[in-house]
Amino acid sequence: MQNNVTVLKQAIEYRQLIDTLMAEDRFADLVLSGGQLINTLTREIYPADVAIKGKYILMAGDASSLIGPDTLVVDVTGRYLSPGFVDSHMHFESSMLTITEFSRLSIPSGTTTLVADPHEIGNALGPVGMKAMADECAHVPNHVQLVVPALTPDCPNLETAGVDVTSKDMPDLLGYPNIIGIGELQGFSNARHVYRNTPEIITDLVASTAYARSLGDTVDGNAPDLYGCDLAAHIIATGGRTSCHETTSKAECVEKLRYGVYVFMREGSTQKNMAECIRAVTEEGMDSRNCILATDDMVAADLENLGHMNEIIRRTIRQGVDPVEAIQMATLNPCTYWGFHDRGAIAPGRLADIAVISDLQEMTVEAVFLEGKLAAANGKLLLDLPAYTYPESVKHSVHHAPLTEADLQIRAEGQQATGRCIVAIPDQNLTECEELPLRVQGGVVQADPANDVLYIACVERYGRTGGIGKAFVRGFGLKQGAFAESIAHDTHNILVTGTNLRDMAAAVNRVIELGGGIAVVQGGRVLEELALPVGGLITDELGGSEVSAKIDSLERTVTDKLGGTLHAPFMHLSFLGLSTSPKWKITDKGLIDVNNFQILDPIV
Amino acid sequence: MQNNVTVLKQAIEYRQLIDTLMAEDRFADLVLSGGQLINTLTREIYPADVAIKGKYILMAGDASSLIGPDTLVVDVTGRYLSPGFVDSHMHFESSMLTITEFSRLSIPSGTTTLVADPHEIGNALGPVGMKAMADECAHVPNHVQLVVPALTPDCPNLETAGVDVTSKDMPDLLGYPNIIGIGELQGFSNARHVYRNTPEIITDLVASTAYARSLGDTVDGNAPDLYGCDLAAHIIATGGRTSCHETTSKAECVEKLRYGVYVFMREGSTQKNMAECIRAVTEEGMDSRNCILATDDMVAADLENLGHMNEIIRRTIRQGVDPVEAIQMATLNPCTYWGFHDRGAIAPGRLADIAVISDLQEMTVEAVFLEGKLAAANGKLLLDLPAYTYPESVKHSVHHAPLTEADLQIRAEGQQATGRCIVAIPDQNLTECEELPLRVQGGVVQADPANDVLYIACVERYGRTGGIGKAFVRGFGLKQGAFAESIAHDTHNILVTGTNLRDMAAAVNRVIELGGGIAVVQGGRVLEELALPVGGLITDELGGSEVSAKIDSLERTVTDKLGGTLHAPFMHLSFLGLSTSPKWKITDKGLIDVNNFQILDPIV
Repeated sequence: MQNNVTVLKQAIEYRQLIDTLMAEDRFADLVLSGGQLINTLTREIYPADVAIKGKYILMAGDASSLIGPDTLVVDVTGRYLSPGFVDSHMHFESSMLTITEFSRLSIPSGTTTLVADPHEIGNALGPVGMKAMADECAHVPNHVQLVVPALTPDCPNLETAGVDVTSKDMPDLLGYPNIIGIGELQGFSNARHVYRNTPEIITDLVASTAYARSLGDTVDGNAPDLYGCDLAAHIIATGGRTSCHETTSKAECVEKLRYGVYVFMREGSTQKNMAECIRAVTEEGMDSRNCILATDDMVAADLENLGHMNEIIRRTIRQGVDPVEAIQMATLNPCTYWGFHDRGAIAPGRLADIAVISDLQEMTVEAVFLEGKLAAANGKLLLDLPAYTYPESVKHSVHHAPLTEADLQIRAEGQQATGRCIVAIPDQNLTECEELPLRVQGGVVQADPANDVLYIACVERYGRTGGIGKAFVRGFGLKQGAFAESIAHDTHNILVTGTNLRDMAAAVNRVIELGGGIAVVQGGRVLEELALPVGGLITDELGGSEVSAKIDSLERTVTDKLGGTLHAPFMHLSFLGLSTSPKWKITDKGLIDVNNFQILDPIV
Repeated sequence: MQNNVTVLKQAIEYRQLIDTLMAEDRFADLVLSGGQLINTLTREIYPADVAIKGKYILMAGDASSLIGPDTLVVDVTGRYLSPGFVDSHMHFESSMLTITEFSRLSIPSGTTTLVADPHEIGNALGPVGMKAMADECAHVPNHVQLVVPALTPDCPNLETAGVDVTSKDMPDLLGYPNIIGIGELQGFSNARHVYRNTPEIITDLVASTAYARSLGDTVDGNAPDLYGCDLAAHIIATGGRTSCHETTSKAECVEKLRYGVYVFMREGSTQKNMAECIRAVTEEGMDSRNCILATDDMVAADLENLGHMNEIIRRTIRQGVDPVEAIQMATLNPCTYWGFHDRGAIAPGRLADIAVISDLQEMTVEAVFLEGKLAAANGKLLLDLPAYTYPESVKHSVHHAPLTEADLQIRAEGQQATGRCIVAIPDQNLTECEELPLRVQGGVVQADPANDVLYIACVERYGRTGGIGKAFVRGFGLKQGAFAESIAHDTHNILVTGTNLRDMAAAVNRVIELGGGIAVVQGGRVLEELALPVGGLITDELGGSEVSAKIDSLERTVTDKLGGTLHAPFMHLSFLGLSTSPKWKITDKGLIDVNNFQILDPIV
């Protein structure tokens, strides 16, 4: 037999549970008594006791025969008992927190299962980084598993990642503990473009997805704005049964549900698409079994102040969805998609992951049980959860000699030049583009901060090419100084913007010195900084509150000291590197014309 | 990589489908145009074309760009397009047909996937027999897979099967092609009895189910009339996510759905439970995603005259269920349970298994596509499907020396004795029991045909013990003669009943000579017979119509020549061997008091 020890252990567990149910002298460890059961299987709410033994639910109904002299009976009269919540698509990197610190903030909100796509670390560090995150999964009390990218970077011709992940890496990665499939299939998001321009990517992707399917693994899709044949091709590239977390309109949601896509209705810190997507259910009456709630990106401050999946469910109820149906979208539906058959409902034999809810409309989570143990109450984690420190192998990921101003210069002949300028749009990944007349001084094209035209650059930071892409940008409104960060979707090179090249070089150099992170510079001096030692993306030195406070301070510094006018400037800058979303972006290879898969010169 | 060839082949298939969707000069093979799509994913019906390439659905919607000069466009205006139907729980043995002959009858009704539990052959022949059936699965054009028993016989202390299957057989069986899990978990159907009387069976069963779960396999339950702690224990014994096809009341259905059991609402030739079970949906409004339609046992005549899953769906609609919801119960819902993610809906990337329906209320299936090929039209199979012949290794399963009258005698002292008598109940597996005064002649207790008291015996037929269980029976009404059969649930020894021992011995001896089958004898002469050479249960010599005609002739012989008064006498006799259903039954070990797990003497 395979896995002899695991099988034997499981058989003994089953046997003990059966003994507890059948023998007259054995009893439950714990009975939650007097509550209202939220039954996600039948879409009902009714009074039921829940009996727990070890990690498992023994019974949900009349549990009186299971109460013995040593059974702890907890009165939950007036409370609702829900299965623990699942976030089916998220990136820990967006929070800058370790899995441990994210869990510390999310468990008290009732989230007991997280499926994360570590594609940020994957771009920066490749399999080494993703396996290090998979290792951390084993150290948290909640259920955390990873789905990994089949391709890094997203657009190999247009940008440089730290490591190139391809189908050759799949056997190693998909065989690693806590890695359960392939994450959002980014290489084929823009189906028609990829088909025309880099068809070899499709061949490699289907090799990966066919292999994943042969293991019974899941493959998440990523099909923003795809319809008809393009959507069908994307679905087939994933191997047929897939998801999409980039659905932004009702019509798109209707078509994806009809095509069999599990729609991850996204509602996170930055992108909020649930209210639009849910109209497929509330207005069209579609079967909601393939509707799933997910956050994609959550920052630490939102986790602390708003909650996690409970908040997303609350908002879904506000859109007119029956509370049990909304809860299904964060419990049974995702567990069906992922094959987590031991969760998603409060029923005999399933893991005792339970959220105790005091107000169903507000989704106020009063207590949380994880595998039968009281894990949190009144918003506080009760489990002992030591901070997790990452190994040295995933630190020191920044390799570039210090920059000089000259490295960042954009040169042109004459007195004036026409510069190409990315135009940042508040709260969007998309950009606009402009061509502008700019002054040339001593052969160097000059930014024009008075008219909100700044320099922008992207510095390859993995020691592979050392290349620097350069262009101009509008939208940040800086009056002075510069800021840089090693967060640059999705390759996570160093992005920098500023009014002058000296401060920009200083900011980049500080990020290099930190081994990754964020730096704000004015007059050659570092005003504020945050080290992100793990892959240049995550800190294993700070907790959630500390990160929130630091981000707040960094943002205030940009606004107050540099005169920045765009809120969340680091997040906005980081998405200017995303070479898959139109129109113009910047990578280490230069200014990218996304729609035409071309690298443009910053000067016309 | 594992399965290099399979993975490569799949990747090439994906790539070709993507090419067809994206390249301007490639087109679908077939487009079904103008029909109404039954979308099981969203529970909608709307106009859509369906484009097919090779085995797969390319698109379901606007397929105009996929129609090229060589595309076959079939006008299905006015028809409904449904995914092919799934029967999730059935036994081929009940039809006495090979998988091939069953498929010949069921494909034209729209059934494209069958999951069968070969526990009859499993009891008779063990792994050799089940693997022979799994081999036949590869020879039919529809999708047929098996789930195998974890235990034969059902009650090892009370009966003898041909082969004892236990957990030791699971690695071999569950690793065999076309075997995908464990079938109805019969050893633990009567949870409290087994717990008290043969707890070692539970230990062996959970070893099997834990092993199956470690492979990601399914495990079907079998929980008739179980509630509360007993039901919970049964669910846990299966490993947590399971089904039950033995649910007979609304209350039982409600409890099972609440506990997370997939309820296989049974509607076959003998047992009809759907109308009662469906009330959980129609009256209580429960979420129906875990409701599944299944037949359990279908005889050839019903397949020919009524249809298959289309007929079961039709009856479900008659109970007030929305047609699309009823169709979900035989398509998407079972495919979700089984993990058949490539089926269950008409959507891009899924297999093109499609039923073309002309009348939705009547579920009239006009044509059937299997993996993109037209497989049947107007009730006729269009594919070339040669009859399948089983290997010699699964024939000649009957090993017993010819009986004499003396072998069947029940002896007692004196002139009179009190005999124990099983009372058959029409259309039920359950029996009643009686103790009756009987005449003793020359030391032999006499039957009393004038008062409908016949002899019954069960002869161990596998050459293991040669044992013969004996008792009396009421309910068949024979006036003369005897009949015997090698169908005797679930061990399939030879059951015989009759008015006199001479005809009984002759009938058994004819079944022995046939190598298994059915024989009707009067005055020492065989009046009618049917050979069932495959394990004594199935014929690979006759097709469906021939078997129907033969059964009809056998039944008429019992009625007309022997004076039998009970309809379907062979089926009723066969269930008198079922040692798991109350009250009294007969096995090769003797008269069984099912409720008390005891063997009784036929004489008080």
